[in-house]
Amino acid sequence: MGFVLDERLASSSFFIEDWPLCRVALKSDRTWPWLYLVPRRDNIREICELSVLDQVDFIREVAMAQQALQILYKPEKINTAALGNMVPQLHVHVFARYKDDRAWPQPVWAVQAAETPYTDQEKQAEIQKLKKCFEGLRRGDKAACHQ
Amino acid sequence: MGFVLDERLASSSFFIEDWPLCRVALKSDRTWPWLYLVPRRDNIREICELSVLDQVDFIREVAMAQQALQILYKPEKINTAALGNMVPQLHVHVFARYKDDRAWPQPVWAVQAAETPYTDQEKQAEIQKLKKCFEGLRRGDKAACHQ
Repeated sequence: MGFVLDERLASSSFFIEDWPLCRVALKSDRTWPWLYLVPRRDNIREICELSVLDQVDFIREVAMAQQALQILYKPEKINTAALGNMVPQLHVHVFARYKDDRAWPQPVWAVQAAETPYTDQEKQAEIQKLKKCFEGLRRGDKAACHQ
Repeated sequence: MGFVLDERLASSSFFIEDWPLCRVALKSDRTWPWLYLVPRRDNIREICELSVLDQVDFIREVAMAQQALQILYKPEKINTAALGNMVPQLHVHVFARYKDDRAWPQPVWAVQAAETPYTDQEKQAEIQKLKKCFEGLRRGDKAACHQ
């Protein structure tokens, strides 16, 4: 059977694109620029359950997601976390943090607050910006992220 | 200058051993079996700042830490997180979660509570158990973790 994204991940995010290993999605909360990376493999819960080749793709894709967030959103810090206590399908959160964000310097999970949805227009703009930056980074062209 | 572990990481953990890339330490809180992996490189804050070769070592070492925790502590889930909002030196938390732990299924950071120190005897026992398991996994011998 083909890869099926967990319903809770799908319903809380917008599809951006598929990479060699991961599905990449934007979390539907504009509080933080926040990506989900989900390896398109069945029945994997932990990074150590990926094959060695997939582990290499995984870290390269996490690094590319971090790089795009750094260039596009100029955060103070990137936070990267694979938790999965509620959604067992292996997924990693890669998101941007700022000194003036509502949880800083705590982990975002230390502060409970409502999510802020993107408008349709904002959502489309973010997705296009990210896709263009990813496409540039694949060619080694960081400048593409700024165009 | 040689690698120097950040003081806040050093003071909240016990040294276990150095791997090809990372220093491995046990967090000094017996609430959860909790490892720190800290790449022994200067001035690195994000995974994407590691060289590609170091990124590969990094993910292989994260996977080995996960595997040891799975075998030794039989958790419900491993949580893996590189946050670094307070300590900029790149470090990843790899720790074991249980359905009856005090934060489940929330991220541990959603629940604030005092840490529980190991006794000296417990600390030595955990460190020896982990070192033996790591040594076995390096040889591909998972059974060594149970001896």
